[in-house]
Formats: sequence, C-alpha cells, structure tokens
Amino acid sequence: MSATKLWGWLSPDHADPLDNAPLAQAMLAKAFELDALPSTPPVPLDPDSVPQSRMTKTQLAALQKLHGADSLSVDRAQRAMASLGQSCPDQLLRRAGRVETAVDAVVWPKSHEQAQALLDCASQKGFRVVAVGGATSVVGGLKPPGDKRPLVAASLSQMNEVVAFSAKDMKVTAEAGIALPALEEWLGQKGLTLGHFPQSFEGATLGGSIAANGAGQRSDGYGRIGERLLQARLATPVGEWRTEPLRHSAAGPWLGSLVAGSEGLFGIVTEATMALAPKPQAVFDGGWLFPSFDAAVDAARKIAQEGLSVSMVRISDAAETRFLSQFRLARAGLERAPLIERAALALKRAPADPCLMLAGYEGSTWSFGDATFELFRLLRACGAISLGERPGKSWRKSRFETPHLREALMARGLGIDTYETATPWSQLGHVHAVVAAALSKAIVETSGRPGMVMCHLSHSYADAACLYFTAVFLRSNEALAQWRRLKHAATHAMAEAGATVSHHHGMGADHAAWASAEKGPAGIRLLQALARELDPEGVMATGMQAGIK
Amino acid sequence: MSATKLWGWLSPDHADPLDNAPLAQAMLAKAFELDALPSTPPVPLDPDSVPQSRMTKTQLAALQKLHGADSLSVDRAQRAMASLGQSCPDQLLRRAGRVETAVDAVVWPKSHEQAQALLDCASQKGFRVVAVGGATSVVGGLKPPGDKRPLVAASLSQMNEVVAFSAKDMKVTAEAGIALPALEEWLGQKGLTLGHFPQSFEGATLGGSIAANGAGQRSDGYGRIGERLLQARLATPVGEWRTEPLRHSAAGPWLGSLVAGSEGLFGIVTEATMALAPKPQAVFDGGWLFPSFDAAVDAARKIAQEGLSVSMVRISDAAETRFLSQFRLARAGLERAPLIERAALALKRAPADPCLMLAGYEGSTWSFGDATFELFRLLRACGAISLGERPGKSWRKSRFETPHLREALMARGLGIDTYETATPWSQLGHVHAVVAAALSKAIVETSGRPGMVMCHLSHSYADAACLYFTAVFLRSNEALAQWRRLKHAATHAMAEAGATVSHHHGMGADHAAWASAEKGPAGIRLLQALARELDPEGVMATGMQAGIK
Repeated sequence: MSATKLWGWLSPDHADPLDNAPLAQAMLAKAFELDALPSTPPVPLDPDSVPQSRMTKTQLAALQKLHGADSLSVDRAQRAMASLGQSCPDQLLRRAGRVETAVDAVVWPKSHEQAQALLDCASQKGFRVVAVGGATSVVGGLKPPGDKRPLVAASLSQMNEVVAFSAKDMKVTAEAGIALPALEEWLGQKGLTLGHFPQSFEGATLGGSIAANGAGQRSDGYGRIGERLLQARLATPVGEWRTEPLRHSAAGPWLGSLVAGSEGLFGIVTEATMALAPKPQAVFDGGWLFPSFDAAVDAARKIAQEGLSVSMVRISDAAETRFLSQFRLARAGLERAPLIERAALALKRAPADPCLMLAGYEGSTWSFGDATFELFRLLRACGAISLGERPGKSWRKSRFETPHLREALMARGLGIDTYETATPWSQLGHVHAVVAAALSKAIVETSGRPGMVMCHLSHSYADAACLYFTAVFLRSNEALAQWRRLKHAATHAMAEAGATVSHHHGMGADHAAWASAEKGPAGIRLLQALARELDPEGVMATGMQAGIK
Repeated sequence: MSATKLWGWLSPDHADPLDNAPLAQAMLAKAFELDALPSTPPVPLDPDSVPQSRMTKTQLAALQKLHGADSLSVDRAQRAMASLGQSCPDQLLRRAGRVETAVDAVVWPKSHEQAQALLDCASQKGFRVVAVGGATSVVGGLKPPGDKRPLVAASLSQMNEVVAFSAKDMKVTAEAGIALPALEEWLGQKGLTLGHFPQSFEGATLGGSIAANGAGQRSDGYGRIGERLLQARLATPVGEWRTEPLRHSAAGPWLGSLVAGSEGLFGIVTEATMALAPKPQAVFDGGWLFPSFDAAVDAARKIAQEGLSVSMVRISDAAETRFLSQFRLARAGLERAPLIERAALALKRAPADPCLMLAGYEGSTWSFGDATFELFRLLRACGAISLGERPGKSWRKSRFETPHLREALMARGLGIDTYETATPWSQLGHVHAVVAAALSKAIVETSGRPGMVMCHLSHSYADAACLYFTAVFLRSNEALAQWRRLKHAATHAMAEAGATVSHHHGMGADHAAWASAEKGPAGIRLLQALARELDPEGVMATGMQAGIK
C-alpha cells in the first residue's frame, strides 16, 4: 500500500484521459454552460486533518504482540487511507486533502488465525474492527457509526494466497484478500475463470466482492459472486464460522448465503471456496442501435426470459448513447463522425436519437454459432440495427477505464456519482423516468445549472433488471451537501418506486437510511439477531450498521 | 383430504404394479432368497391407537372462533393423517394401522391472515403449530420433538389460489398450499412452467417444496426450487415476514434465502413469488450405456463443467441398471430381452454389466440442435453407446411411478427406503462405495439375507453431484428398528465422508442427529438465534428442531 493511493484510483500515475483532449473538454464545458472547465487538482493530505489515534498503549502493545510491529500502523496517512473507499464523498474528502474521521490503527493479519486473534483481542481490550479488502466500496462500506471505542482497520492485503484447488471439482479456495486480477491470472493458467469482472476489478479483492455481493460485467453469464460461493470461512467475535461444506444441500437453510452481502457485519471473511468456469473459448461483443430505450429494454427482456446464452446485455439510454458517441469523437479530436460512418448509418436507416445495446457471448465454441445467430435474429426482430463488433471491442478495451475518467472529471471542477438499482421489467420504464428526473432536478438545484444524467441497463434476469445511473454535475462549494442531496434524490426515488436501493454496490453507510424500506421490519430484526449472535459485544464495525441498529 | 390416503400414496385405488406380474414377483423373491413374496396388506387404522386429543375446551373454542367449525377437526383419523409424511417409518406405521403420536387437532386456514391469527392464538392459548403442505416429507418433517403443549397441524390445502401473475416479469405469486400439478396446469395455459418436478410431484405443494428446498428431476436445467424463489410471505409467531421485494439486490444479505429449507422453523410460508420459465419448445431424453459407473460419472462431470444445456443427467449404477432392465422385462412377462434387442446391443458392442445414463434436453428449438449434437459428441468421446430415445421415453412415462411401486413392495413383506446426498466429484466414487457397503451390511444384519442396494446419480453441478441410493430389503419383525439401523448406516457413512446428509429431501427429524455435523457449531447457533427471534415462545413445531435444540 502506498500513500499515493490517497489521491486517485489505484495510481496517480495513470494518464489523465482528458489531457490533450481539448475538444472533449470543450464539449463538457458546454454541457455545463461554462466557458471552460475549472481546474481543481487534488490537494495533498493535510496530516493535521486526521484525528489523533485513540488507541491506548495497552491496546497497541497487545496488537504488536499479535501481529508484530511491521504489521501495525498508527501513521496518519496510513490510517486515512484505510478509512476511505471510492464513494463520491470519500473522493471529495481525499481530493480536498482532509480526512476528518479515521480509523485509529491499521493492522495487516497474515492468516485466518491472526484475524481470529485480532477479534479476540478486540473483545478483551475494548476496540472495534473494520475489515478492509480493496477499499473500493462506493457506498461507504468503510464508514461505521461512531463509537467511544477505538477503531482498528484490518486490511486483508497480506492474506492473498490460493489455499486449495481442485481441477476435478472445478473449485478454488483462496484467502479473502487476494486481488481479483491476481486470482484471475492464477486461474487463467489452469484454463479457468471466476467470471467476476466488476468495474472495480483492478482494485477489488475476492473477500470484498463476496462481502458486498457484487455482480460483474459478465454476470448475465457467470452469475453474481454470491452464486459462485461454495463455502466461506470467517473469523467472528465468537470464534470461527465455516459455512456448510456444500451448498447443494437441503439440510436446513443454506447459511452460506448470509455471507454474501454481509459487509463485515458478522466477522471477517478470511477464506472462500469458489465455483469456477472454463475460460471462454469464444468471445463476442456486438453493438446494436434501437430507436428507443423502451424497444431496447423489451429486447433485453426477451433475451433474459427466453434464456439466450449471453454473458452481458447493456443498453445505454438516449442520453448516455449521445454522450458516449460525442465523447468518443471529441477525445479523438473529431467534431463529428467521419463521413463513412455517417453514410453507413444512413444506409442502415439508423434512428435519429438511438439507444446503444451491447450484447456479448462468452463460452464454448460449440454453442457460439447457435447462440449468436439467435441473438442477431431476436434483436433484428425487435427492430435493432447491427453495428457489428466495433462497439463491443471498444467497450472491452476500456471496460475498466471509468474510474480513471472520474478522476479526470473531478480534477476539473466536476462531480460524478453513480446510482444503481434492480427493478422488475414491468416497473423499469417508470423507475428510469423518476430517478432520472429526481437527479436532474437535484443537479439544477444544487449547481444552478444543468448537468448530465445518463442511464444504462446492465444485468438482466427473467423477472427484473439493473438500471445504472450516472450523474455528472458542476461541483458546488458545498460539495458534500450536494452529493448528499443527489444521493437522497436518487435513492428515495428508487425506494418509493419499490426498486432495490442497490443491485450490486452494497448497502454501506450511504444506503443505510433505506435499509428498513428494503428489508422490512422482520428482516431488520433478523439481521440484528444474527449480528448479536456472532458479535454480542459489537466488536465488528461496518457502514451498514447505521441501518440496522 | 380423504382418510383413505392413510394407506398409500395419494390413492389406494391406484393399480398395484406387481399384480398380474408373476415373473416380476418371482424375480424379487429370488433376490431375497425367498420362494415367494409374503403378503402383507395394509391394516386399517385402529382409531384407539391414536392418542386422545390434548386440546382444552378453551383452546378448541378459540380455534373454532378463528376458523369456523368446518375448518377444525379433532377426529382421530384426520389427526393421524396430518401426523404422517411419506417416510419409511411413517409408511410402516400407516400400514400397521397404528399412529402412536399424533397432532391434537387439525385446522385449515384459508388465508395468510387466518394463518397469522392461528399463530397469535397459539401463543395466547398455549399450543404449538406444525405447518403441513402435501405431507410428502420422507425425512420426518412432520415429527417435531415432544412438548407438553398440544400440537395443532395447520394444513394449507385450502390456501391454493394464484394471487398475482405478471407475464412481463415472468413471475407468479401463489398461496403456499397450491398443489404442484395444479400450479403447473395453470402456468401451462400461459405457456410457462415452474420447472419443479420432484418425485413427489403428484402430492407436493408449492410451499412444502420451498420449505424443504427441493430439487426436481429437471433441476439441472431449472435449478432447485429455492433458486426460483423471488419473494416469500410468512406468518410467524412475531408477525408477518415478507422477504425483500427483489432478490437481485446487494443491500445486505438476501434474507429470502433463509426460507428455502426452513421447514416451518420460522413460521408458516403462506405465499411465494416464483420466477418462471417458458414451457419447453423441444424435449429430448436419450439413453446411453457406459462400461462402468466411473466412466459415466466422468461424462456427467464434463457435461456439468463444460456447461452443456441439459435439463437432466441421471446415471444408474450397475446394480440399478441391472434391476431396471430385469424388472422391466419381468413386468412385461419376458424371461429375457427379445432377440432383436440383444442383437442390436451385441452389434453396438455394449458392455457386459453396463451403467445406464439418461440425459435430457428441455428448452428452445433454436438451441436444440447444437445442444443435443454436443451432448452426443461428448458422450461418444467418453465411451458411451447410444440407445436412442426409448429409455428416455420410458422414463418420462413412469417418472412419478416409484411411490406407487413402493406401496406394492411394502404390501409384499419388503421394505424400501431411499437415501440421498451431495458430494464433490472428487469424492463421489468413495461416497458411492461406502454408503452402498454400509447399507448392504445393515440389510444382512437386520434381515438375515441379502437385499438390493442401488444408486443413481442425479442433479449435477460444476463442483458436485447428488447420489441417490435405494435399499430394498425383507422387512424384519422389528421393522422400525430395522429402518433406523439402515438410516443410521447410510447417513453416518455420508457424514463421515464429508457428504451432505441430504441433497433435496430435507432435514426433518430423521436427519436431525447429523444437523450439527453439517451446519457446524456456528451454523447451529445462527439457526437457533433466527428461530428465537421469530418464534421466542417456541410456537412453531417441526421435525428439524430435534437437531438444533
């Protein structure tokens, strides 16, 4: 871990995607009715903004005895770093060089046993523990409610080994802190994949993905991470919890299901056994244009309900399609699309203000032919115009780019946040409309000017789909209050419409206020009862606690 | 509900499959070293064997006020009927005309509100409630631990309506007591299916299937019932519990997962919303012969791990293949296979003592070609000999016959029980061997002669598969003790080998002794905590409680 991480997504050395792209900057400035984008580079951390550690000498001595001096830190920068995720407010704080709430110490356990000893020690010595994976939470997963006891961050970055592997059972057991890219690389050498590729792939860990019950970009094919979980091992304040050895059992409810989405509420996930899939033999991602979002959504619904073999269906609404198209051209230094592109679209009678669908296949060669043929047939029958493979290839190339682009926008006076939800197909149009309207209104009210509100559909099921909203806005002087206002507007609109407050980002502190709307009173009671059972003294600390206490 | 059900599977009028099949009877007699099978017809219920109802006048008056006189019964036959499932010991008791432990009353709530009122009344008036669906449990799901308080069976047979349906969201909400055939018929008219076809299909209900987390014969294609559950509504002793409106959420752990497999521990499932699938456009079931069980299992593993589109893979081991083949001929009155069949097998160089695999496709026409072609290609590469569609058609015709055959065997002095488990592929051969050996040994020890122990693989996953054992034996004079001995032998062998004590039958009272082996100490604590939260006074009664108390 390097303190430089404090100021950006993974590395501050990543090229700024807006540098040397004057047309793109001009395009953005115009969208916000500005002559030029302001310059708001990040401010280095002011160490004095980080509160002093509240750890007592006894507590520190106990930790040092457990983990050794080099696995323990009370350094302000280290503590600040372990206290922030990647949410919009975390980014705002980080870029302002101010971290006003921080953990009191950071430790790096090296094994399940050390993680267990840490919790035992916490119970004895009176401090709390928050588990930290890749610290990529965008919903305040690392922001537990305040408490008089000191708070220790347990970073799992040193627990990153593959523990067991069975080719015959196509499964792997790894320590929770293993980075997703490292795990994928290891599995790739065996001809296998976990199939979990969230936007945060570059920075996320296996345990963090499970704890937040994430869904990757290819989840239409591989399922969400919780569906690949076979067994979890946790260190909890009352001792080890190994979930059932097999999930394919009718011997009572499968309790392993409680781990996915638990966000550190019950303990520290230290190891997980995951079901794998063969590395795809064939990959195809195509692009299609639809005359309207409704028409494209209808096609996505048919794909999901008729059980087509797809690994991804992604539909940008008209606003997002327009932005993506214009931004791509502007970044390439073009005022408008090349003649040949425009001519080709005209020949195909492309709609005027279209919606772009990306649909992908990832799997075996034997089913590739029928699967893609049927996909093309269905989409054509739904009124789509095929753009071939180019949009898909371009998406694959830049699929993990968005966090880097976010940095570039935030360095230019803009704010950007994302809001995602799942909703039944029958409510999807309504949810799209009310959330977009709520965000647009909040942007105008907080920045005094229009912003950009875009949405895409990702992750489809037979009964429902995920809508993913992006808002880009001119940051106000009260950026945190502005963020809160937008967050509230979007989430409130989702909850009002009966949609879930998150499809794959998690609960965290940022969604905690809506926890009871989603879980219901009985659900909240059950979460409380489970937490009480595994953590009677409240040793574990995590953002979502604000919603279930 | 008719009291005649007491003596058989659904209807005592079903033709006895062994009547007019002297060759089949002779074949069975020979297997047990008998000259002829004994005749042990069922004995009518001795009403005096049913304990008196312990309900007080106050309790009965309260129930009558709630449900009306015609929805309440203390009749001995009715009470006996509601106290027995379809397990081997339940069958033994039923056929002996003796029901020594019975519920004290039966009520038939007509709505969620009535079910809720029943639980409130139970709490106030001091009785317990056991939820009864189709009463098809084969693991003692209806056998709660004893208690001083009277026990009331809540039969859900009057709660059998479709409550809501959305074609656009491809989902249905139905009352829990709806029978699976009725629901399938209703859905079939919409061109849809739930895809849940357990062996007990003819007698099972939706709520019972969910409570036991069943897996149907086509679960390789449709998943187990818990995977189709979108939302459940329960009446619990502390009030209504509606699980989250959508399961596709990252807002904390999905608590709806706790309902599948809960077996009435937390309350009465009153309604469920289920994800549906299109009725298949194409159905194909083929048969293949393998030279060994290992070779066939290896092929099944490849099918699962390479993600072939199958709705079912079923492999009979050599003993079961032999029995199925001989029994089919004997029932048809043939001493041996017709010459043309034998010649065809000889020409194909069929192995001497083969294992039969049935593999099925069920889905769209567009993927039918590639899917079945790949299936044939893979199986051929694994050394299988195709038998074409005949074995599959014959299986489809008789897929729900086994419970009826069981009646016929039990009427002829034989006992029959089944034992099923899930185990990783890498352990499957070992589990097959040790469970079969344990059963064979227990049969000899309890009946003084050999029996039949057969096994098939059903339900495959990337990491594991289900093994399903059938034991047929000569009943001893101590039939209940004999059953217990066999059950213990099989389940102990499974648990020792790290396999689950049930893949799809459930926990019930019969597996309760192994609950902690599977759930682990933390798992048991969590189940206790959940039950305590929703049912602090222990109003709910269910078989599995013996294992978590």
